[in-house]
Amino acid sequence: MTKKIGILTSGGDCAGLNAVLRAVTFRAIRGYGWKVYGIHQGSHGLLERPVHVTELKIETFTAGLMRFGGTILGTTNRGNPFSYPVGDDRQDRSDEIVEGFHMLGLDALIGIGGDGSMAILRRLCEKGNINFIGIPKTIDNDIGLTEKSVGFMTAVDIATEALDRLQPTAASHDRVMILEVMGRDAGHIALNAGIAGGADVILIPEIPYNMDIVVHKLKEVTKREKNFALMVVAEAVLDENGRNLTIADVKGKRRYGGIGHYMAERIQEMVGAETRFTVLGHVQRGCQPNAEDRILASSFGVYAVDLIAEGKFNRMVAWHNRQVVDVDLADAVSSYQAVDPNSTLVQTARGLGICLGDK
Amino acid sequence: MTKKIGILTSGGDCAGLNAVLRAVTFRAIRGYGWKVYGIHQGSHGLLERPVHVTELKIETFTAGLMRFGGTILGTTNRGNPFSYPVGDDRQDRSDEIVEGFHMLGLDALIGIGGDGSMAILRRLCEKGNINFIGIPKTIDNDIGLTEKSVGFMTAVDIATEALDRLQPTAASHDRVMILEVMGRDAGHIALNAGIAGGADVILIPEIPYNMDIVVHKLKEVTKREKNFALMVVAEAVLDENGRNLTIADVKGKRRYGGIGHYMAERIQEMVGAETRFTVLGHVQRGCQPNAEDRILASSFGVYAVDLIAEGKFNRMVAWHNRQVVDVDLADAVSSYQAVDPNSTLVQTARGLGICLGDK
Amino acid sequence: MTKKIGILTSGGDCAGLNAVLRAVTFRAIRGYGWKVYGIHQGSHGLLERPVHVTELKIETFTAGLMRFGGTILGTTNRGNPFSYPVGDDRQDRSDEIVEGFHMLGLDALIGIGGDGSMAILRRLCEKGNINFIGIPKTIDNDIGLTEKSVGFMTAVDIATEALDRLQPTAASHDRVMILEVMGRDAGHIALNAGIAGGADVILIPEIPYNMDIVVHKLKEVTKREKNFALMVVAEAVLDENGRNLTIADVKGKRRYGGIGHYMAERIQEMVGAETRFTVLGHVQRGCQPNAEDRILASSFGVYAVDLIAEGKFNRMVAWHNRQVVDVDLADAVSSYQAVDPNSTLVQTARGLGICLGDK
Amino acid sequence: MTKKIGILTSGGDCAGLNAVLRAVTFRAIRGYGWKVYGIHQGSHGLLERPVHVTELKIETFTAGLMRFGGTILGTTNRGNPFSYPVGDDRQDRSDEIVEGFHMLGLDALIGIGGDGSMAILRRLCEKGNINFIGIPKTIDNDIGLTEKSVGFMTAVDIATEALDRLQPTAASHDRVMILEVMGRDAGHIALNAGIAGGADVILIPEIPYNMDIVVHKLKEVTKREKNFALMVVAEAVLDENGRNLTIADVKGKRRYGGIGHYMAERIQEMVGAETRFTVLGHVQRGCQPNAEDRILASSFGVYAVDLIAEGKFNRMVAWHNRQVVDVDLADAVSSYQAVDPNSTLVQTARGLGICLGDK
Repeated sequence: MTKKIGILTSGGDCAGLNAVLRAVTFRAIRGYGWKVYGIHQGSHGLLERPVHVTELKIETFTAGLMRFGGTILGTTNRGNPFSYPVGDDRQDRSDEIVEGFHMLGLDALIGIGGDGSMAILRRLCEKGNINFIGIPKTIDNDIGLTEKSVGFMTAVDIATEALDRLQPTAASHDRVMILEVMGRDAGHIALNAGIAGGADVILIPEIPYNMDIVVHKLKEVTKREKNFALMVVAEAVLDENGRNLTIADVKGKRRYGGIGHYMAERIQEMVGAETRFTVLGHVQRGCQPNAEDRILASSFGVYAVDLIAEGKFNRMVAWHNRQVVDVDLADAVSSYQAVDPNSTLVQTARGLGICLGDK
Repeated sequence: MTKKIGILTSGGDCAGLNAVLRAVTFRAIRGYGWKVYGIHQGSHGLLERPVHVTELKIETFTAGLMRFGGTILGTTNRGNPFSYPVGDDRQDRSDEIVEGFHMLGLDALIGIGGDGSMAILRRLCEKGNINFIGIPKTIDNDIGLTEKSVGFMTAVDIATEALDRLQPTAASHDRVMILEVMGRDAGHIALNAGIAGGADVILIPEIPYNMDIVVHKLKEVTKREKNFALMVVAEAVLDENGRNLTIADVKGKRRYGGIGHYMAERIQEMVGAETRFTVLGHVQRGCQPNAEDRILASSFGVYAVDLIAEGKFNRMVAWHNRQVVDVDLADAVSSYQAVDPNSTLVQTARGLGICLGDK
Repeated sequence: MTKKIGILTSGGDCAGLNAVLRAVTFRAIRGYGWKVYGIHQGSHGLLERPVHVTELKIETFTAGLMRFGGTILGTTNRGNPFSYPVGDDRQDRSDEIVEGFHMLGLDALIGIGGDGSMAILRRLCEKGNINFIGIPKTIDNDIGLTEKSVGFMTAVDIATEALDRLQPTAASHDRVMILEVMGRDAGHIALNAGIAGGADVILIPEIPYNMDIVVHKLKEVTKREKNFALMVVAEAVLDENGRNLTIADVKGKRRYGGIGHYMAERIQEMVGAETRFTVLGHVQRGCQPNAEDRILASSFGVYAVDLIAEGKFNRMVAWHNRQVVDVDLADAVSSYQAVDPNSTLVQTARGLGICLGDK
Repeated sequence: MTKKIGILTSGGDCAGLNAVLRAVTFRAIRGYGWKVYGIHQGSHGLLERPVHVTELKIETFTAGLMRFGGTILGTTNRGNPFSYPVGDDRQDRSDEIVEGFHMLGLDALIGIGGDGSMAILRRLCEKGNINFIGIPKTIDNDIGLTEKSVGFMTAVDIATEALDRLQPTAASHDRVMILEVMGRDAGHIALNAGIAGGADVILIPEIPYNMDIVVHKLKEVTKREKNFALMVVAEAVLDENGRNLTIADVKGKRRYGGIGHYMAERIQEMVGAETRFTVLGHVQRGCQPNAEDRILASSFGVYAVDLIAEGKFNRMVAWHNRQVVDVDLADAVSSYQAVDPNSTLVQTARGLGICLGDK
């Protein structure tokens, strides 16, 4: 029987989302003869009346859409449907979304999201009796039970490229260069890019730092070893007073250049070396997906459709030991994956002599 | 006690070799205070008298050498030391290499190589009582017991980038574009890049193809779906008469543009569409390592030195489920890893509707 | 009065064509309120009945089309409308094209093309009383009266990048690496990329070479200076017997890997160094336009529309001394621009010690 | 007679400096048999005792140094030798530099610098009777009498690439994205990258803006045309109160994220669209030179040495109409090249419908 499935992208965008949409569409149409409806702006498209959806077809993707960053469906930060902003107030509008889904006569929903949106989607689908499959995407790589999520390695590539570009200018001017990268509460991008880009110091939220240790390392590096230093700091690293500068603004807006700016001032003063910082920002999100993210996105998309064909729901697709597998959605949602201080990469960083701020 | 270790790069070069050298050097010097000697041109440096080695130091790497392709030690195809070309003859010169090693007073040897050179190095070290650790590198990804080897994903990036560039010109001219990629007897680069780059047809040596099926697919694609098609073919794919065109030359030299050229002529004739081909060649080897290969190289290098510190030898470092581990060298050498026709990526390719030539 | 203008892309595709379409469309609509019709597959779209055109609008370009290689209008090699292939015969179908143009009620035609298509379009427009403006594009940079044409510098970037990737693998294996680049009868890509990519030898059709001089240089380089060499050869360079290998095939098809392949065999034999070659092929055409080509494309497109508004026709836009200007179309068409052996770049190449084969 | 020449890099680093050093070295050694001495850290290397210089040889460059950003000689911001910081004081130390030059027995000096350092070097050489040739480099492109300077187009590439990456994420989230780029007091990078990267608004210091016009344009774009907007702002653009935020800090340190940050807050408030900003920073300087900058650097380097051979001094090499020429140094130093509001590129920007803030 011909099924109709919906698909949406939720939360912050990243590289590889269009590749997931393509894989789902190709598999559903070519493999099963189903119809695929792309829901606009996360679940918000199901709130609108008429519902805001577009049928995804083979020709949607023939001009090479897979290669582009972002998502043609749009995404939204407008907020949790269970507590949706209405004027200055908040309201539970989840019923309308469920209604929208059923108005379309959809058999199942595929949600591409990070851990936040995945939890909300799970709750929504449980409430609305919606057959749901989750596909993990996040540049932060903080979703548990999967080795990797769509968008992460591309973000690492971009941050690494920035370090490659900062090194020659640091060396030409005897400078300490600080790169602030994204990653929310996790240090995965900072750790990976720091190793790949030849950083001397990497600060991540999972490993508390001691400023004297950082300063000592930078002095040693710039005085004995070479005339410059590179330092990567994850956006969620706290300042010396324990404040998270990305959320320090009173109005709830994220401050820009929080910890990178802070560190640059402190390092310049304490190390006595000319110090500059760069906040990489949204270029980590919007760029073209690298080969790995496209392969991952393609594998996830195909497998998600196959799960629907088998009637397996409430699952999240995951990457494990060179294979796509599926895991329980509830388990995945409740497993947060920070950087493990005993992981191979932390040991690699220490083994290279990179200072992580704690010793 | 201060150890002295040797390191060499062997076989075809790939991206990430200098990153391994750096990681080994940093770990050995900073972690243990050892000395590291780089042996030039594979094991050949130990054949020369005086032996051709260079001490690797921290400052060898401070200008950013990790980011460059190739290997500063050079490598060699001059051949198997057990059957070394001497004039028109061949001779067992393995004793001289072992002698060279011991003349240097080295405590251990790290060999970075593919499956061919790893097997030879293993035999050499066994014979010469040399403490050996292997680090897997190959753009072909055909070494068993490790999820990935240094250099592979960068080669996939380059091949994918080529497809990204071929698509617009194919679409502008209503053409079938064929990309011949490396990979020796394995189809890993072709399969990965084909999925990532949006190929319509991927031919790999592990899956025999039927030309009528290929032609049928290309006709369908170019007539019904879009005005062009992309096809990837691994260099070791046989022609319709079962010949391997990379080794068809009588003098033992590899012919250039073997199967890609062959396919272009056949497809143009049988499909009736203008067909062009590109043989990517050595740009897949010499480019800068991507972030993933640098991380892998760094992790392998650090871990290899730690194995020496622990006195564990005859091991190959490997990547398994997000960690570096070590496996028995003999097992690794005897485990060839072709593309598994039941693997996730083959299923992904089929799920996307990519024709693999067999159905 | 609201005008209606047509635009077409003709001849081999290159990077930057979509950027020209965008600039013309933006200028015509936003600046003058005109309508723009994109004609498909070169002038062929005017041959079809109904004529094959698409209205170009602002929204055609909002998703970032400017950044993509190729042309959304397609182009064609189907041939000269004055001698159009009909079965095995040829026929003058120019009247039909002129008719198609007037059926659309167009006020003017903008043709983006190289010197070949520009000459044909000029003849066509003269015959059909069509108001014509030409915009020069070609990766070959062989159009006279303009300092640069759309697509050239991007092709140089790609060829340079290939040399950057070939160098490390050449150095790792003591090899001579030969890169064959496009350029038709001109050596501009070879000369520019050879300088930018650090070649030791550059052969271009404008400067006849002596093989002994080439061999002498390569021996000197690989024996005295470094262990490898890089050589760039333009596709139209003749072999030692004076044959042009790109057109050697009897059936009129271009042979692949002509002079690059030829040179690799000769050099390997005569220099005695391991030699490999790469034929860059269509990746030089289909890639994303670099910043310079997008700026050039944008300036040309805007200016071309302004010329139509002023009622100036039979002009080609051109770049001269930091400005867009317009030149007489007939003059441009008859001015072929090969590499001038006395130009700055030839002197630069000689000044760097690059061998151009003649001394 | 064998000459000895000195060369130094001065002022802020940019892409292409090592390519100039290479061209000078190759030309001087291969063409004339001279010796070349690289002076470290701008003119500072001549202040040190012993003077801090390194002989540059062919082999300095054989591993591909031309391709790397930065300068192996280092550069310095330590300041004007006529007013050199000594403790908290300033002192004229120009005599010591002149002395250093003559201690080395150098016949001539090549200085690679921007307009600031070129003026100082000119004064220094006049005073010290030093034969001087200047080579223009600057990412700001503000040096007069030359069409382009080394480093500029690479910086434009990087800024354009950032816009390419910001667009998809802007489109996915319905955002206004603001990119702050370098350029000192000139808007060249902003104007070029804004055109190439598809900006809707470009603000440059040469064209005063009216905030209402900017806001009107962004409202129009985001409401009628597409769901997002891109805006580029040059670092020297003043805020609405006429303050230059790059120099607003009381201690003389440049504030980070000045006008970009300011604009983001104003736009978000006045346009009512979610707005994010990125300050590109030093990645514009340190990256690899593109092909054009390497060609320019090579041509300038060769020509500068030829000028010395001819005994022509107090000249600056320049690019004019496809050729290297030389101009009077004093004239060049006194010709500042801001963006000309009547230039082709300004007209191109206006022609595309880009808002420059003034109408």
